[in-house]
Amino acid sequence: MPRVLFLPFQVEEEVFPDETIIDVAMRLGIHINASCGGLGTCNKCKVIVESGEVKGERIEEIYYKACTLKPIADVVIRIPVESRYDRRALIRKNRAQALERVEKIPLNPPIKKLYLELTSPTIEDNTPDLERLFFALKEKGYEEVRIPPELLRGLPYILRKGDFKITLTLFNEGLSKGVIITDIEAGDTRENNLGVAIDLGTTTLQLELIDLNSGRVLAHTSDYNPQLSFGEDVISRIEFARKKEGLRLLSERVRERLFILMEELVKEADRKLEEINVVSLAGNTVMTHLFLELEPKFLREHPYVPVAKNYPVFFAKELSIPLKENVPFLFAPSVASYVGGDITAGVLASMMAKEPYLTLFIDLGTNGEIVVGNQDFLMCAACSAGPAFEGGGIKHGMRATSGAIESVSIDPLDYEPMIITIGKKRAKGLCGSGIISLLASLMRTGLIDRMGKYRRDLKHPRLRRGEEGYEYVLVYKDDSATGQDIVFTENDIENLIRAKGAMFAGYQILLESVGLSLSDLERVFLAGTFGSFIDLEDAITIGLLPDLPRDRFYFLGNTSLQGAKKVLLSVEKREELYRIAQMMTHVELSNHPRYMDYYMAALFLPHTQEELFPSIKIRS
Amino acid sequence: MPRVLFLPFQVEEEVFPDETIIDVAMRLGIHINASCGGLGTCNKCKVIVESGEVKGERIEEIYYKACTLKPIADVVIRIPVESRYDRRALIRKNRAQALERVEKIPLNPPIKKLYLELTSPTIEDNTPDLERLFFALKEKGYEEVRIPPELLRGLPYILRKGDFKITLTLFNEGLSKGVIITDIEAGDTRENNLGVAIDLGTTTLQLELIDLNSGRVLAHTSDYNPQLSFGEDVISRIEFARKKEGLRLLSERVRERLFILMEELVKEADRKLEEINVVSLAGNTVMTHLFLELEPKFLREHPYVPVAKNYPVFFAKELSIPLKENVPFLFAPSVASYVGGDITAGVLASMMAKEPYLTLFIDLGTNGEIVVGNQDFLMCAACSAGPAFEGGGIKHGMRATSGAIESVSIDPLDYEPMIITIGKKRAKGLCGSGIISLLASLMRTGLIDRMGKYRRDLKHPRLRRGEEGYEYVLVYKDDSATGQDIVFTENDIENLIRAKGAMFAGYQILLESVGLSLSDLERVFLAGTFGSFIDLEDAITIGLLPDLPRDRFYFLGNTSLQGAKKVLLSVEKREELYRIAQMMTHVELSNHPRYMDYYMAALFLPHTQEELFPSIKIRS
Repeated sequence: MPRVLFLPFQVEEEVFPDETIIDVAMRLGIHINASCGGLGTCNKCKVIVESGEVKGERIEEIYYKACTLKPIADVVIRIPVESRYDRRALIRKNRAQALERVEKIPLNPPIKKLYLELTSPTIEDNTPDLERLFFALKEKGYEEVRIPPELLRGLPYILRKGDFKITLTLFNEGLSKGVIITDIEAGDTRENNLGVAIDLGTTTLQLELIDLNSGRVLAHTSDYNPQLSFGEDVISRIEFARKKEGLRLLSERVRERLFILMEELVKEADRKLEEINVVSLAGNTVMTHLFLELEPKFLREHPYVPVAKNYPVFFAKELSIPLKENVPFLFAPSVASYVGGDITAGVLASMMAKEPYLTLFIDLGTNGEIVVGNQDFLMCAACSAGPAFEGGGIKHGMRATSGAIESVSIDPLDYEPMIITIGKKRAKGLCGSGIISLLASLMRTGLIDRMGKYRRDLKHPRLRRGEEGYEYVLVYKDDSATGQDIVFTENDIENLIRAKGAMFAGYQILLESVGLSLSDLERVFLAGTFGSFIDLEDAITIGLLPDLPRDRFYFLGNTSLQGAKKVLLSVEKREELYRIAQMMTHVELSNHPRYMDYYMAALFLPHTQEELFPSIKIRS
Repeated sequence: MPRVLFLPFQVEEEVFPDETIIDVAMRLGIHINASCGGLGTCNKCKVIVESGEVKGERIEEIYYKACTLKPIADVVIRIPVESRYDRRALIRKNRAQALERVEKIPLNPPIKKLYLELTSPTIEDNTPDLERLFFALKEKGYEEVRIPPELLRGLPYILRKGDFKITLTLFNEGLSKGVIITDIEAGDTRENNLGVAIDLGTTTLQLELIDLNSGRVLAHTSDYNPQLSFGEDVISRIEFARKKEGLRLLSERVRERLFILMEELVKEADRKLEEINVVSLAGNTVMTHLFLELEPKFLREHPYVPVAKNYPVFFAKELSIPLKENVPFLFAPSVASYVGGDITAGVLASMMAKEPYLTLFIDLGTNGEIVVGNQDFLMCAACSAGPAFEGGGIKHGMRATSGAIESVSIDPLDYEPMIITIGKKRAKGLCGSGIISLLASLMRTGLIDRMGKYRRDLKHPRLRRGEEGYEYVLVYKDDSATGQDIVFTENDIENLIRAKGAMFAGYQILLESVGLSLSDLERVFLAGTFGSFIDLEDAITIGLLPDLPRDRFYFLGNTSLQGAKKVLLSVEKREELYRIAQMMTHVELSNHPRYMDYYMAALFLPHTQEELFPSIKIRS
């Protein structure tokens, strides 16, 4: 990979494939004014190529547009910052390191295929078909076997079609030693045995098709949760479920969509729908309730009681999903109303419950769930952080899709912003990472004080009093995709402070409840897409993450999906998942006597107690 | 009860309520000419009342019609037999004694109702509904509990409706220690717990509604099996099932009819359909297959393999029967293709497998099944007797309904018949008991020889050559309900001889297979309606039953229904039923090396070996 040396900063860095100079600059915390998001229309991001071979668009003869500029070999780039150069702006961006946890799992899937060569009946041995089958199963050690009606009805035909050589699909429900026959096929079909792992997210559905014979992922797909059209977050879905037929509708929609996605999966892998023998799902408590058509309203009403946390196995026919009728659906167990199967599966995937290191696991999606612990204990809580970090409750917030501002830098001298959008499109709004990035930049430049209020004394065209009070104009309407100014209001900031305060107070309460504190944390695991896009420095700067050595932070990716997959690979993993759920002590934060104190103290940027954030130096 | 003394025979007998003098005479074997079946139209049954008080119709001043005559107090009746009197006609009719086997069964039904007062959730204990329930069940000793989807979905509402006081209906499937929750009701509903016992007959459906709290029968109903319109016997039903949608149609029809009958039952008992918590069925192998929609054709095809003999439990929803969705249906296990659950349930009801007495159990319905054994062993077989004893394959045979000739006597001197019909209606045809009675009478009067051929040398208007060879006219068309002569052909007799020969050879093979013979039999149990109507003397005379002391014969009634009922009363009885089925060794008669010899030897009246029927004296 080519390298770039930025002057006058004397900072050198590798350039990853597809990165432009503006991407690298943003990564390094080098400010270059830019308001078009990287699209190439604002003509502000002028840089000088001092040496090296480049591709890109020229401007005003001597400059290149940084947002189009790609080095072919090593280059030296000078940023024309002139006298305004301020070293303080150079805050190196820092993603958490990826932690690919490869666990060696001996394959022992919950679904077994068993090939049997039965003896054909004769007049001397005209044992009935079912008893002939059961006898052979007994010889293989299966004593208690159940057969569903449809399969019993089909048994005589399959047996004779396969000349009494058949392959059974067996499922151990895990309740007893007994097994259920979930499919019977003529001949030897052992090589076809697929499972589907599903992350049942409030916003996104993620699916993987797994070959249960090899453990390999054959295909992956994802889509929005179709319930989004009935409500963005779990609360609004619960409300929608109160309507007549509301619950049924929510449930049917997501089941239908998942079936379509499963069809896509098998098509992509060139396999057949009939080869799917098991589905493993992990979702939060509300999503799992809605999927199963279990009444969710009591989750919201005092005293917040789920219908179930250890969900029984459901079969495809019981869910009206047109897979083979007896395909079992396994659900990751919940711990509480707002600590669900996505978290238990996440903890399973993270392996934190098998290791001695004190770990803080954070899943900041539509809700914020946290777990603190290690092999000896697990404490968990749901933080009422709300969807602010997904753009919810933020005036120009939006989901992380094309046109969303994902990264922001503000020049500390002239307060002009540099933005990068997803897909390098005209900006439509701010997604989570952009919001955090912006808030951190506002702090660093001193545009806001520690309570999150804009400096009233500063005269700057981007700082103004809007309809909802003071705001900073990030993108003027001429540069935006919406034809409107994209602004960031004090209301937005207040919402963010509340959200990050709730998270931070949560970490503290969980740690305190076991007599520990933040500095004892040996690792911080960031789960979900949020974890992979967030900038560590920014998140710590605003007080969303604790101020710990950066090498203790890891992002784990979609741990919910990873956990759901592990359940498919091994019955021991499913048992471990249940042990984890059992082990997780839930702390009801809203109910905790000291929660309010911690929360109030966290309603500062980064925090009332500055000593908790020693590495964060901000203007004030 | 008044008594009647018949002169000149000097035979005295009690008169049962509703009996007329002709009924008593028939019972005693005293012949009175009568061809109207008891309707009072033929004016032939003239008797003289010598003393006593009577009600009835006079005829020719000094006579009464015997068919209308009822004694009010003791009477003396003279039969005007004059010189034609022949003592040999006096064959006292003899029903087998009823054996009401009252077994004390400590109530332990397969369905239990359990009342639970759960604690209401609080913010300190917001355990989910399902786990709250399971915890309470664990305290009661139920460790492995399954809950069906519908009940889980309804759980939060029921719990709150009943203020967390609920009644569970629990079913132990018998496969493991686990139980299934089959219903959940708000409040204490323990007093409502009903079961339905069903005899799933080829011809008739018999149902009883049982209160599982007391074991009492609350209602009884019966109807023809609606499958009759698709075929009279099991073979023709199997053939019908081969047609497109044939099996589904047969299955649906009987399930629909049974549901209607269950509605009748609860209505009669003033109970609710929702109180039914379990259904126990006993039927032959073909009927059970058809009910469950299991392919029956292999039962008929060499090597005669049922789909199953130990049928899994099916739930109402799996059978599309609109009871509560999770009501379990329990099926008495079969032993072989033609020894079904009606027989295993029958043996259970008879208690023969718990006693030391060597017993022959005979169920002569549409098929003929026999069991020989006691507490130490059980041998069973299906005799291909066909439906002759139900009127099938007999020219004027019919089922035992109104107008069927159920009893016949023939005057040994003038060969004139005396007949009694069911309901005292004009004769339509002959039912089973009438057929046996007629054949025995023909033997006693010497109208047929021991090969079942009419005496060619005898000139009598009732003996004639018809379209199908020689025949005896039992009812002239003027007296019949059909406007046609009712005749009994040599073909009919041949069919009957084959049928009774098949039965008799069956008894002998089963006994021989355990080194015993007919004379070792300590008891003969007659099951089914046939057993209750058959005349012992007649049945022994024709060689259908072995010639044993008459006090060894018992009729047991509908043992299939009784067995189905016992299963409802106690799980131990269900276990005993399975032990019985396991213990029953099936002998394939058609395959037995000595069967043909025994069968050929039995194609005589009563038998080739006269010494087997020492008490039977017939003219020849």
